[in-house]
Amino acid sequence: MAQIHIDYNQILQLEKQKRVHLINSLGGFKSVALVGTSDKNKNTNLSIFSSFFHIGANPPLIGMIFRPSPPERDTMRNILDTGFYTVNHINESIFKKAHQTSARYEKGVSEFDATGLNSEFKNDFFAPFVAESKVQLGIEFKQKIDISINNTMMIIGEIVQIYIPENCLFDDGFIDLEKANTITCSGLDSYHKTLQLDRLSYAKPDKEITSLL
Amino acid sequence: MAQIHIDYNQILQLEKQKRVHLINSLGGFKSVALVGTSDKNKNTNLSIFSSFFHIGANPPLIGMIFRPSPPERDTMRNILDTGFYTVNHINESIFKKAHQTSARYEKGVSEFDATGLNSEFKNDFFAPFVAESKVQLGIEFKQKIDISINNTMMIIGEIVQIYIPENCLFDDGFIDLEKANTITCSGLDSYHKTLQLDRLSYAKPDKEITSLL
Repeated sequence: MAQIHIDYNQILQLEKQKRVHLINSLGGFKSVALVGTSDKNKNTNLSIFSSFFHIGANPPLIGMIFRPSPPERDTMRNILDTGFYTVNHINESIFKKAHQTSARYEKGVSEFDATGLNSEFKNDFFAPFVAESKVQLGIEFKQKIDISINNTMMIIGEIVQIYIPENCLFDDGFIDLEKANTITCSGLDSYHKTLQLDRLSYAKPDKEITSLL
Repeated sequence: MAQIHIDYNQILQLEKQKRVHLINSLGGFKSVALVGTSDKNKNTNLSIFSSFFHIGANPPLIGMIFRPSPPERDTMRNILDTGFYTVNHINESIFKKAHQTSARYEKGVSEFDATGLNSEFKNDFFAPFVAESKVQLGIEFKQKIDISINNTMMIIGEIVQIYIPENCLFDDGFIDLEKANTITCSGLDSYHKTLQLDRLSYAKPDKEITSLL
């Protein structure tokens, strides 16, 4: 297999959109989900993000990255104004509608209405869930960290509500996301379903790894 | 499809290992890769991580999360001491060896030797690449941000060297990671290959999304 080598100067000299596609592809397959928010007047907003990461289990924390403002970031403003948001997994039946939420709609247009995805309010949680999502998380905003190096922002939230399909939860706490039809993405615009290779036992220096399946 | 609802108090009351599996599963499929480092004496270290995220394309930045010390984190210490590390994608032929790097080996044992993965030094880059990886990145350390809420740390690095299979790079900069056999993971121990559903056109309010394939 022939490899291409691209060095730092070549990266910087790439045409802008080509660099954006390339660098977005390099991190590997990504956690992609729809973030639902409401403003103070209960106007809903929905937007796709692919920069989620695990920060800790106790307390249960999830992180995500926001690109610099301006332009105005409705999702970020709603999170800071109201303190709540939802993270909704994307499945094969809704990935095109999910992608469409990234269009720059006029002020006042909810991406729920524009894409045909349905909002769902439950358990008195302030922000809207996506009814079509099978794995839905209610998140409470905890901290905003400015990343000065390129003016992006990290938002840290605590997972306070979990909705998952009954038949996807294992006794040990593992969730079979594949059975829940959760998909993944790569780059800016490529969507993928998955095929499980294996679940592996806890690794120890003196022990052969075994399959947990 | 029946859904289970787990609220905040129930999350906190879960048995520790069950909560760890559950919360690690909730973020969706993750970017998983092997991080290669050397200490000042050129002793190599290799460790699997699943918390990578895109921060920006210009400059080309990648982020990752480290759990609290102690115990001593060799990868983190080498990054801070030497300023360089590699990020190596995991493919189907090496995912068991990659998982095995998470075992807690004695001081002085390189995970390259312990797992049989081969180190590769090239282009005068200080840190070791994984020879069996098809997508290899050389990263220069830029910033460490302490996340006080749970004592974790975010490391931000700049992508300064890129090695990718020649036949996986598209004209627009997109990398076909599926063709490169890059895999993804979920939870703590589940590995998955992918099946591309589609690449979608840039979303606009007044336009139907089309396939780029």
